[in-house]
Amino acid sequence: MPIYRGQMFVKWVFENQHKFQAVRKCSSSLRYKEVEESATQTQPEHVAPPADATSPAPDTHPQITPEISFKYDDLQVTLAAPYQLQPKPDVSDLGFGKYFTDHMLRIHYHKDLGGWQKPEITPFENLNLHPAAKALHYAVQLFEGLKAYRGVDDKIRLFRPDLNMERMNLAAQRSGLPTFDGDELVKCMSRLIQIDQEWVPHSETSTLYIRPTLIGTEPTFGIMAPDSALLFIILSPVSTYYKTTDDGAVSIYADPNVVRAFPGGVGNRKVGSNYGPTIETTARAAKMGHHQVLWLFGPDHEITEVGAMNIFCVYINDAGDKQLSTPPLNGLILPGVTRRSILELASQWEDLTVKEEVLTMNRIIELNNKGRLLEMFGAGTAVLISPISRVGYLDHDIRIPTMKQSQPVFQRVKDTLLAIQYGHIDHPYATVIS
Amino acid sequence: MPIYRGQMFVKWVFENQHKFQAVRKCSSSLRYKEVEESATQTQPEHVAPPADATSPAPDTHPQITPEISFKYDDLQVTLAAPYQLQPKPDVSDLGFGKYFTDHMLRIHYHKDLGGWQKPEITPFENLNLHPAAKALHYAVQLFEGLKAYRGVDDKIRLFRPDLNMERMNLAAQRSGLPTFDGDELVKCMSRLIQIDQEWVPHSETSTLYIRPTLIGTEPTFGIMAPDSALLFIILSPVSTYYKTTDDGAVSIYADPNVVRAFPGGVGNRKVGSNYGPTIETTARAAKMGHHQVLWLFGPDHEITEVGAMNIFCVYINDAGDKQLSTPPLNGLILPGVTRRSILELASQWEDLTVKEEVLTMNRIIELNNKGRLLEMFGAGTAVLISPISRVGYLDHDIRIPTMKQSQPVFQRVKDTLLAIQYGHIDHPYATVIS
Repeated sequence: MPIYRGQMFVKWVFENQHKFQAVRKCSSSLRYKEVEESATQTQPEHVAPPADATSPAPDTHPQITPEISFKYDDLQVTLAAPYQLQPKPDVSDLGFGKYFTDHMLRIHYHKDLGGWQKPEITPFENLNLHPAAKALHYAVQLFEGLKAYRGVDDKIRLFRPDLNMERMNLAAQRSGLPTFDGDELVKCMSRLIQIDQEWVPHSETSTLYIRPTLIGTEPTFGIMAPDSALLFIILSPVSTYYKTTDDGAVSIYADPNVVRAFPGGVGNRKVGSNYGPTIETTARAAKMGHHQVLWLFGPDHEITEVGAMNIFCVYINDAGDKQLSTPPLNGLILPGVTRRSILELASQWEDLTVKEEVLTMNRIIELNNKGRLLEMFGAGTAVLISPISRVGYLDHDIRIPTMKQSQPVFQRVKDTLLAIQYGHIDHPYATVIS
Repeated sequence: MPIYRGQMFVKWVFENQHKFQAVRKCSSSLRYKEVEESATQTQPEHVAPPADATSPAPDTHPQITPEISFKYDDLQVTLAAPYQLQPKPDVSDLGFGKYFTDHMLRIHYHKDLGGWQKPEITPFENLNLHPAAKALHYAVQLFEGLKAYRGVDDKIRLFRPDLNMERMNLAAQRSGLPTFDGDELVKCMSRLIQIDQEWVPHSETSTLYIRPTLIGTEPTFGIMAPDSALLFIILSPVSTYYKTTDDGAVSIYADPNVVRAFPGGVGNRKVGSNYGPTIETTARAAKMGHHQVLWLFGPDHEITEVGAMNIFCVYINDAGDKQLSTPPLNGLILPGVTRRSILELASQWEDLTVKEEVLTMNRIIELNNKGRLLEMFGAGTAVLISPISRVGYLDHDIRIPTMKQSQPVFQRVKDTLLAIQYGHIDHPYATVIS
């Protein structure tokens, strides 16, 4: 009987290996595209790239047909009275997501009233929610995270907000929440930032973090798509997301017994359900002296993400070239905007091979033992780039020489992104909004 | 390389099969015990039963060390004014979780203030939540569901509330939320029900549904255990949970491409994260004419749960005996109070063999084709017992003769539970509270 089950597993592996083995050289414009397990796709193998694909994956994003969207032109603004304005905290005290600005954006959705209502900017205030709201019981909720940067020219820029909007709509579709026109939300968001523009730090180590959130508000206990929802945006001036060691690197802990995401789940969508279940594991890692969790998957202990970031490795590949690698978008990985931007930018650097590929812990250890592993780092909007110098895994205490490189890739990536974000160079990724 | 990966899978199966193959005759007192992947358990194989275990699983529940708990003795009650009282809806219009009673219970937790605050019963009202509350972004939330029954003697009973409290504390521990003394919450809950006792329907087809909920309220963006939380209980008079076919049975849809829970995840804890991600799949099943989703797992398509219920099968086993089976608590299955009660009650029935065992779709189809599958049904607090007459799976349209049995087990189970809940018989499962 066990052998029979084992054979079934092997059969399953063969039938599904394309999901895990998509190793291909990126061609930049398609790098964000993902093997999509959408509602209409009952035969995933028809759209997944074969294991040895050398051509780019087809554009398999589901077509989002947005609800009749709210419009920026309908935006109603109520400014805070002078007595309602909050004192601005010192930049050194910002932390991550502790302070909030004076205004917020709200857009209600009521199916019975024709769907999306008029967007409103109002003074920042608490939400008034029915205690049976589906967002509080069934995690009918999703969010985005992006930032507004005050540039060297004092202009305020957003970084590829269209990608956040695309991802937010995909998450809405997956959650039974209403979709919308992302361009309209970017316009509303930009207006909100303009109003609170003095909250965008005058500093290149701090930014204004933007948190669009969409929650199901229908107050009934049925586990189904809500008839009412609330989209809101709040803004928070932030500095660093979390503590590091003295040299700025983090130590991470890989526990093969816990799983962040799984095939057929929601690991590739930015929904609340991906985060709450990680808290206990992260706290356990912290007790062991690590900063974040390295999330593994499957019997081979493939690396997938680190903390709430995408993960990258730099190593000398079998051809002797320096290679930047990150796990492919196989349904388990959040399609990060920073991740995509790094892949696109680095693929233009002649001295670096760039690949999306499966990396197992055994491979990491082997490369490290041979002195071929040069760097590991996390990448995401909140932290930007977070170099990793240590990995705890089973009985291994793996030291990664990330901070010992003379010209590390992580620093080059970080400098390039910061230069775009803070307007040191003109680049189509950055959009001036004020 | 694929062969290597396949071999790794086989190795993984052999190392982990005990998690999936625990087939054993139940001995009643240990039936709720579960292979536990707790925070302190780094060597799960040391506590899991071996594949061929004939002895009961050891008691491996983690020891919950509750925070210094709130106390019933500190309860403060503010009754609604007469003008605040809501009209009671007609029993025929109740539905499930659409109407709420006149009062609610709230207990705040603030780490900075020493933890749990005094419990309060107040008039029912909306919650005032900071828009950055972790419950709304990272699904830091969990809930319970139980019912108050008005018996034939007009007394109001609860059904094993201690089990809900135990499960709620396990979910809190898994979610970084504070734990508490379940007995104290049952006392507070009972007082709330006494105050709103006229909302307990005078009917044996309706009940008062009780929804204890615990959410993280700390308004910061760090993905970590919240410093503040809110435990609240709201009450809703309910009748049936969902529509069925004319004969009272449901049709269910099994899609092997979607997954409810995964080893290392939270499928065995009643947290919001298990529910939101199911909405899209359930809506898809509904479009195909089915009432609920049958959740499968793994390459063998093991059945795990149906909708938000545990699942049971009745069939003629290889020894020729009538057998009642349900999947074992292997980490993927919610430890249902109804599930446990059915196992305990039915194991005392001499004419029935009772087993927790893995059941694959192939096994279901084989038994059905041979005429040995007699019944399938879902079981849970909300619906109690939901007979299943049809399963859609790949290209199969499987008709289950559940409604064609002359003395079906599901009906016997249902009648027994109802007799206990509505006080037709005295039984230790039922607790009179008013």
